[in-house]
Amino acid sequence: MARAHWGCCPWLVLLCACAWGHPKPVDLGGQDVRNCSTNPPYLPVTVVNTTMSLTALRQQMQTQNLSAYIIPDTDAHMNEYIGQHDERRAWITGFTGSAGTAVVTMKKAAVWTDSRYWTQAERQMDCNWELHKEVGTTPIVTWLLTEIPAGGRVGFDPFLLSIDTWESYDLALQGSNRQLVSITTNLVDLVWGSERPPVPNQPIYALQEAFTGSTWQEKVSGVRSQMQKHQKAPTAILLSALEETAWLFNLRASDIPYNPFFYSYTLLTDSSIRLFANKSRFSSETLSYLNSSCTGPMCVQIEDYSQVRDSIQAYALGDVRIWIGTSYTMYGIYEVIPKEKLVTDTYSPVMMTKAVKNSKEQTLLKASHVRDAVAVIRYLVWLEKNVPKGTVDEFSGAELVDKFRGEEQFSSGPSFETISASGLNAALAHYSPTKELNRKLSSDEMYLLDSGGQYWDGTTDITRTVHWGTPSAFQKEAYTRVLIGNIDLSRLIFPAATSGRMVEAFARRALWDAGLNYGHGTGHGIGNFLCVHEWPVGFQSNNIAMAKGMFTSIEPGYYKDGEFGIRLEDVALVVEAKTKYPGSYLTFEVVSFVPYDRNLIDVSLLSPEHLQYLNRYYQTIREKVGPELQRRQLLEEFEWLQQHTEPLAARAPDTASWASVLVVSTLAILGWSV
Amino acid sequence: MARAHWGCCPWLVLLCACAWGHPKPVDLGGQDVRNCSTNPPYLPVTVVNTTMSLTALRQQMQTQNLSAYIIPDTDAHMNEYIGQHDERRAWITGFTGSAGTAVVTMKKAAVWTDSRYWTQAERQMDCNWELHKEVGTTPIVTWLLTEIPAGGRVGFDPFLLSIDTWESYDLALQGSNRQLVSITTNLVDLVWGSERPPVPNQPIYALQEAFTGSTWQEKVSGVRSQMQKHQKAPTAILLSALEETAWLFNLRASDIPYNPFFYSYTLLTDSSIRLFANKSRFSSETLSYLNSSCTGPMCVQIEDYSQVRDSIQAYALGDVRIWIGTSYTMYGIYEVIPKEKLVTDTYSPVMMTKAVKNSKEQTLLKASHVRDAVAVIRYLVWLEKNVPKGTVDEFSGAELVDKFRGEEQFSSGPSFETISASGLNAALAHYSPTKELNRKLSSDEMYLLDSGGQYWDGTTDITRTVHWGTPSAFQKEAYTRVLIGNIDLSRLIFPAATSGRMVEAFARRALWDAGLNYGHGTGHGIGNFLCVHEWPVGFQSNNIAMAKGMFTSIEPGYYKDGEFGIRLEDVALVVEAKTKYPGSYLTFEVVSFVPYDRNLIDVSLLSPEHLQYLNRYYQTIREKVGPELQRRQLLEEFEWLQQHTEPLAARAPDTASWASVLVVSTLAILGWSV
Repeated sequence: MARAHWGCCPWLVLLCACAWGHPKPVDLGGQDVRNCSTNPPYLPVTVVNTTMSLTALRQQMQTQNLSAYIIPDTDAHMNEYIGQHDERRAWITGFTGSAGTAVVTMKKAAVWTDSRYWTQAERQMDCNWELHKEVGTTPIVTWLLTEIPAGGRVGFDPFLLSIDTWESYDLALQGSNRQLVSITTNLVDLVWGSERPPVPNQPIYALQEAFTGSTWQEKVSGVRSQMQKHQKAPTAILLSALEETAWLFNLRASDIPYNPFFYSYTLLTDSSIRLFANKSRFSSETLSYLNSSCTGPMCVQIEDYSQVRDSIQAYALGDVRIWIGTSYTMYGIYEVIPKEKLVTDTYSPVMMTKAVKNSKEQTLLKASHVRDAVAVIRYLVWLEKNVPKGTVDEFSGAELVDKFRGEEQFSSGPSFETISASGLNAALAHYSPTKELNRKLSSDEMYLLDSGGQYWDGTTDITRTVHWGTPSAFQKEAYTRVLIGNIDLSRLIFPAATSGRMVEAFARRALWDAGLNYGHGTGHGIGNFLCVHEWPVGFQSNNIAMAKGMFTSIEPGYYKDGEFGIRLEDVALVVEAKTKYPGSYLTFEVVSFVPYDRNLIDVSLLSPEHLQYLNRYYQTIREKVGPELQRRQLLEEFEWLQQHTEPLAARAPDTASWASVLVVSTLAILGWSV
Repeated sequence: MARAHWGCCPWLVLLCACAWGHPKPVDLGGQDVRNCSTNPPYLPVTVVNTTMSLTALRQQMQTQNLSAYIIPDTDAHMNEYIGQHDERRAWITGFTGSAGTAVVTMKKAAVWTDSRYWTQAERQMDCNWELHKEVGTTPIVTWLLTEIPAGGRVGFDPFLLSIDTWESYDLALQGSNRQLVSITTNLVDLVWGSERPPVPNQPIYALQEAFTGSTWQEKVSGVRSQMQKHQKAPTAILLSALEETAWLFNLRASDIPYNPFFYSYTLLTDSSIRLFANKSRFSSETLSYLNSSCTGPMCVQIEDYSQVRDSIQAYALGDVRIWIGTSYTMYGIYEVIPKEKLVTDTYSPVMMTKAVKNSKEQTLLKASHVRDAVAVIRYLVWLEKNVPKGTVDEFSGAELVDKFRGEEQFSSGPSFETISASGLNAALAHYSPTKELNRKLSSDEMYLLDSGGQYWDGTTDITRTVHWGTPSAFQKEAYTRVLIGNIDLSRLIFPAATSGRMVEAFARRALWDAGLNYGHGTGHGIGNFLCVHEWPVGFQSNNIAMAKGMFTSIEPGYYKDGEFGIRLEDVALVVEAKTKYPGSYLTFEVVSFVPYDRNLIDVSLLSPEHLQYLNRYYQTIREKVGPELQRRQLLEEFEWLQQHTEPLAARAPDTASWASVLVVSTLAILGWSV
């Protein structure tokens, strides 16, 4: 897991923030927050003065005859991570938290955000801004109705509201005599002017064939064949998510933090391929790779990114039907297509196809996980030696694991901001250390590392929790119950097409049994050098059914507020299960290859099946990672791996538990009187 | 389970019929079905001639200027079982299956039904009727569009379409230039005339206080207090489901098969209580019990059942907001309330309140299950003696268990049609034997009994599967895996407010493990002398979250087509769980008290926890039912109970399985080398 938003889609921010319960806000060093009730107000140095930019924004609003203007935290593609030039909400408010919506009226300005960010907002916003400790459109609309007069116009940038969000504003405002007004020119951008960071302009490149599962031509043909088979006979598919276009053409760039994407749309019709992007960013080789100089059905016409809305609108004048995935299409596109010409699904056929990896993609993704395990193991070995010296902190640790990953073949940076959390920090929902604010690692505390890499062949994501000293009995119990949850879900056999939601409780049962639980989701899909949180695979209610060839993380946890946090996350491939009686059944094959911390496992809580599973997993780690460590002459790491993958044996229980029942039963089997 | 529709709501018929896979239609004795392709057509004697009634119906349609008329299989209250006078579809078509929609145009007539009923329909319908082997509104509308001209009017009785069903017809017809026309006078009834069975007219009576959890006054006050707390401040609640009115006033009657209800609506406002029913059916005592002679806020005004639509329409003229549960409100009521005056929830507050039983209701429901167990045990003991004689068949067996239940205190008949199924019949999804068509019980076959009783203190529902001879290893394995599923879900500890859907896979895991599964739901709520399938409690996606005080059935199964069927169903109370660490956790307390068949349990598949659970359950059965059997001097049954609840001991496994692992592990614990 990285932060709370997985799925390359910001709507999950809230889902996860809420599911976690009420996480305490990160304490940003004392209570140095604004106080707007004194005269003059008290403002800490971290506050940004927004008076000028607000005045300028209100001038723009006046020009458009608006009573209010909505500034969301999204970009035009529902990206999980957004570029600096898209951080409009942060720029206009001063508040840099990743989630929060701003609304400006002619008299007031306000921000709505969740509990993770309340303190941060009070430290960063000046007194121009009200802070509303609520989320969702309902409280915003309730506020708007009291703040703006009847007949008022509420402006928004249609490229920053998803169809769903627009519908929820629209529904809430119905009958209120206030009007939602779509304005394609972003008013914050007008005010931001030349200060606004530029849109990235690095080359867009084609992946080498060795790193792709199919050619773009094969993918285009596959999608077209889905169009032909569709009963509503769409004439075109519009792709709005950046990962869709990146996947379809096997193209990558670095426009977005952690995601190798570039700003783009694709309109794939039955007779043409129209790629909306900045043409100057393609080399002549890449243009030729895309057949961009011809005009046939297998030639990619590159059109300017900014033309997408007009081009769609023009295309929609014809006798056409445009197929979209509504989850990733913004209102700015949606509103220019007549409803009777829309063919809608929650996820586009590209999203659905991409979710199932073919055998080459599976091989690639697995290979990246072997190298990723080398980097993580190097880090764990290093920590074991250096933590006792007291010289390691969360931030320098995060830097080091990123560095080790960077040394792996095909590395292309981290796949999300590394969560390196010691002691009580690991209980915070979305903690990442900074150079200024971090905690020292210690043999007396647990340490949680949730990190991943981007490699040309795959994207990785793994969490391990370790303790170098003497963990408490409760820490061991909690860790072991989390581990049991991971094992119970990983080894589950379930019918094909079961939804993840139906089975994710198996990752929780061992915790529930003792009155423990965790407040986040149990897993998410992952891509081949694409999103680390790749929707729509996973265990949430809006994920699609499990199918052979999908990859998902499995990541139960346990968090003790103010004390420690545990999460054990592996990536697993959905594979066919061999069952005693014939049938179409699936199970998981774990492809993350880093041993769990033996120091934290209470073997007495494990059943014989758990031990059997663990020992088989350890054997697999040895087979996969051992040779790689030897080949690289990482002999210390190889030795460490051997030690940490020694088979575990059943042990007498600390307390009356599973094993005691086992002894009694076996004595009964042996015919002894008990 | 009884048939496929649980929840007192017919929409589940389809859900379950589909979920079961493609159940084979019951063979109604050979292939004596109609053949409309010969001249003259071949019609078996079971066919009903519908020419006259169709002609009369078309005359009525002409009077209303209709091109088509829809005849659903519902009544006006979404009842699971419907009265004979409501069986319009059966009467007009001749086809008596419980699910199926008819549509008549001026030239054609057609029935849509699912695979369970295809053979039956071909045996009962004459050649006036097309049979469409599809379900849902889409195929009906597709057919309509080809059969009726543009501008055509499609009539329907608005009291026979739920809001959802109406919306789905409306949506499908939008833009087609065909119009849905609501006609409150049912046209089939006009044709049916004096032949139509009368509406029941038995007395409506108040339950004795001993059998109620609260007085009706307490319930009315509770519901009103929910109205006051509601943020949309409804001024009234409209109750359309018969169980809602029966529950609210603690009134019962026998208008509906298996359900002790009477035709009624309630409009509970902040200042009045208006009960729409046939006033002549209340005795003077009952009228006085209802304070029906006064007009204050705690006086029940009884108005005529037929006046409900007009009365709601008149009430809705005022400054009012009417709260409805959309799942149980028909379009005939919905269409007379202006949308801005509606406060909608899926389930009414009465449905939600009724779902959680208070402690007295819990005690009552449990007591009824003890007596119910006596009846079932008497039957099982009797079968054990009589099946080997070869004199028992499914139908006579069903009659006997119904008779035994009838002899129990407070009995008020069966709670659904007894499923008494021997051998391969138990694999049929909705089998019930008839006097004419049934199978002999045999020591060589498995026998499945799914039955329940209505008692003044509670409603029961239990399924046991037995074998009196030598079951095959596969039968024992399947039975034991079903049993493990029942146990694993029953003993699960889960957080308060978890939805059943999230945990029902625990009832399937042991089956999945071997490549086995079942195609129906895992359980449903149950009432206190109310519905045997009481919505909205259960394990389906549209059930509400589990809460302390709810009762649900837990009923995994396994069905081998053409061979045998297994289901083990218990009713369980949701109770607080005591966990090692504090938290709000729930678990189940099983309140069905009939032992499982030891002859079918393969002990080697059970874990020590399963054995521990089973033996504790057996002990509970002894404590609850033993004294009752002794008190009644049912000594043979008492003896049988003792035998069948002897503690089970772990046994050496037949094959390499759980217990072998266990032995190895324990030897390891004991320090032996293995």
